[in-house]
Amino acid sequence: MIYLDNAATSYPKPNEVINAVNKSFVLYGANPGRSGHNFSWNTAMAVYSAREKLNEFFDGYGSEYVSFTQNCTYALNLAIKGVVKKGDHVIISSLEHNSVSRPVYTLNEKGIITYSVFKVTHNEEETLLNLKNEITEKTKLIVVTAVSNVFGDILPIEKISQVAKKYGILLFVDGAQGAGVVPLKMKKQGINCLCIPGHKSLLGPMGTGAVLHDGCIAESIIEGGTGTDSFSLTQPQVFPEKLESGTINVPGICGLKKGIEIISMYGVNNVFKDETELMKLMFNELMSMRNIILYRNEYNEESFAPIIAFNVKGKHSEEVANLFNENGVAVRGGFHCSPLAHKTYGTESTGAVRVSPSRFTTKKDVNYVLNLLQKIAINKKM
Amino acid sequence: MIYLDNAATSYPKPNEVINAVNKSFVLYGANPGRSGHNFSWNTAMAVYSAREKLNEFFDGYGSEYVSFTQNCTYALNLAIKGVVKKGDHVIISSLEHNSVSRPVYTLNEKGIITYSVFKVTHNEEETLLNLKNEITEKTKLIVVTAVSNVFGDILPIEKISQVAKKYGILLFVDGAQGAGVVPLKMKKQGINCLCIPGHKSLLGPMGTGAVLHDGCIAESIIEGGTGTDSFSLTQPQVFPEKLESGTINVPGICGLKKGIEIISMYGVNNVFKDETELMKLMFNELMSMRNIILYRNEYNEESFAPIIAFNVKGKHSEEVANLFNENGVAVRGGFHCSPLAHKTYGTESTGAVRVSPSRFTTKKDVNYVLNLLQKIAINKKM
Repeated sequence: MIYLDNAATSYPKPNEVINAVNKSFVLYGANPGRSGHNFSWNTAMAVYSAREKLNEFFDGYGSEYVSFTQNCTYALNLAIKGVVKKGDHVIISSLEHNSVSRPVYTLNEKGIITYSVFKVTHNEEETLLNLKNEITEKTKLIVVTAVSNVFGDILPIEKISQVAKKYGILLFVDGAQGAGVVPLKMKKQGINCLCIPGHKSLLGPMGTGAVLHDGCIAESIIEGGTGTDSFSLTQPQVFPEKLESGTINVPGICGLKKGIEIISMYGVNNVFKDETELMKLMFNELMSMRNIILYRNEYNEESFAPIIAFNVKGKHSEEVANLFNENGVAVRGGFHCSPLAHKTYGTESTGAVRVSPSRFTTKKDVNYVLNLLQKIAINKKM
Repeated sequence: MIYLDNAATSYPKPNEVINAVNKSFVLYGANPGRSGHNFSWNTAMAVYSAREKLNEFFDGYGSEYVSFTQNCTYALNLAIKGVVKKGDHVIISSLEHNSVSRPVYTLNEKGIITYSVFKVTHNEEETLLNLKNEITEKTKLIVVTAVSNVFGDILPIEKISQVAKKYGILLFVDGAQGAGVVPLKMKKQGINCLCIPGHKSLLGPMGTGAVLHDGCIAESIIEGGTGTDSFSLTQPQVFPEKLESGTINVPGICGLKKGIEIISMYGVNNVFKDETELMKLMFNELMSMRNIILYRNEYNEESFAPIIAFNVKGKHSEEVANLFNENGVAVRGGFHCSPLAHKTYGTESTGAVRVSPSRFTTKKDVNYVLNLLQKIAINKKM
């Protein structure tokens, strides 16, 4: 199988990550922060070192402002619902995943907030103007994805942050597709809160994610045991416990830490460069291929992360994805949980086929896919 | 190290569980239910078979009514917050963990619900009367733990259920300490919703849990990508997706499934019997030991799960737990995230030392602990 569905979850996981998970079952098998014995303490230290690693990797506001979650969706819900108050206005981009748009829509339905969607275009100035046009006196929060999970657009985070700062608005970033591929530096880029999955480009196991923030999250959405301040019926107000009720995924966190170490050592820029080289090769071939619809005119590395969405004329994306599957290639067709992005690109009826590589993808894989696609595109028997 | 902190998380995990996690990284490495390719499908099937296993093990209402969560705390929050409406009254027992009491307290603070706490005593009739006395016309929900996580009390679930049914009230059970040790059969016992951790007596990895229900959960507290009905901005109303936004912990779930298989094969009753035998031995020795405070007069298997809480006269429980730790024994002192239980037993000032065995605990372990404790209790040098 050629696996090009890394935007859903990366595969394979490095052996070092699997070994770290394995080792944790023996070395860090106690519940961290729950009991006073050495085994619990050692486990807590292992978790703390993972917090430090994430904080350092994303230029965060301190290890205590890193809370582990089951996934990025939970992190986003926790972050968004943790800051908005009745009457607030929220702005989201037109490329958001359902993990942003659904909670925002639900908060609106419940009469808690109002929200607007600003359109992201291939013209950065236009994008920023679209954003500014949506700002009102009630705007509390802007939530944007770092990278479109369907079309690969890299959003101009620093410039969006400048706008947010100017108006005293919080900026939250969905790092689902960006983390580990494009540089995300919270303090440098002026990000108040960054939500990430552990299992995509950070190479950790499924079941991991985190919310990193500057202390702005005022409310928890989950209350429960934190191992601290046990006698209070109120959720503790200290971080990270406030946002981390119940037992956390220690094996997953140990794997995630190792994944980030691997990425750090190799360098996010090099990951981007390697994957971009392959996707550029693919994009350029697709540009000249008959019956292929692409969603940008050129491959611009500045604003385009290594994910390619395309369609074959006259075919639904699911049909093409199925043909890929029958020929041993895993890609994702359909809507990728991102109706806003598909509306933005006008692909509401067909969806799109998404090819998302990882550091394990090779030129040979890309060539196989191109050959296959050529046959599909001209309806040749396979 | 002698590990007797299994009520925090069980250790060690069986090799079969670790192997199942390991294998999942290779065999079930795609995101389940997200893409149409075989690899994603196979992963979804592995997850589905785990749903079936849980549904069967807990006599649930169907595999679609099993949603995986990060832990039991999240499951309880999701369940409780998913059913209550403004004006509802909720009753909880006096032995609840903070994962029940904190969300209920928070809902009350927000003016959404009112709640009452009924006292659990060693007299079942009295306990049931206490419960009945708290029922009002507005009572929507009763939440009780199956087993006290501190003092080991087994609550009379079936009788509580009869009361709940009589008054048309929902019964939710916190299975944190009960699942895998005492029989929990939802349909048979009339439980509307059961929340469980995967990492305690079910022998799965930390980072796993589940909510099993009869379809009563009307609202989600987290919205996001579900891989289904992508084009809707509303959270899908079908189970299990409604309660399962974002990527789930596939490696953990594969481990949990194996853990439940191991328990099923051996039999929950046998687990209970084995652990009870050891705790009975310990309890009886403690009864005759000087300076030891116990919290029941006799070891009654009918109403007492294999967890022992005790104190040493004149010492804080944390001090005793530290002495245990210095001598290579892991137990938990303090308050165990359960202030209500400590108030019920009058241990608010000292906390208690909790000894919680697993299927890997031996008679030798218990004897070592008893010897150690004898020295601690008479202040002998160790």
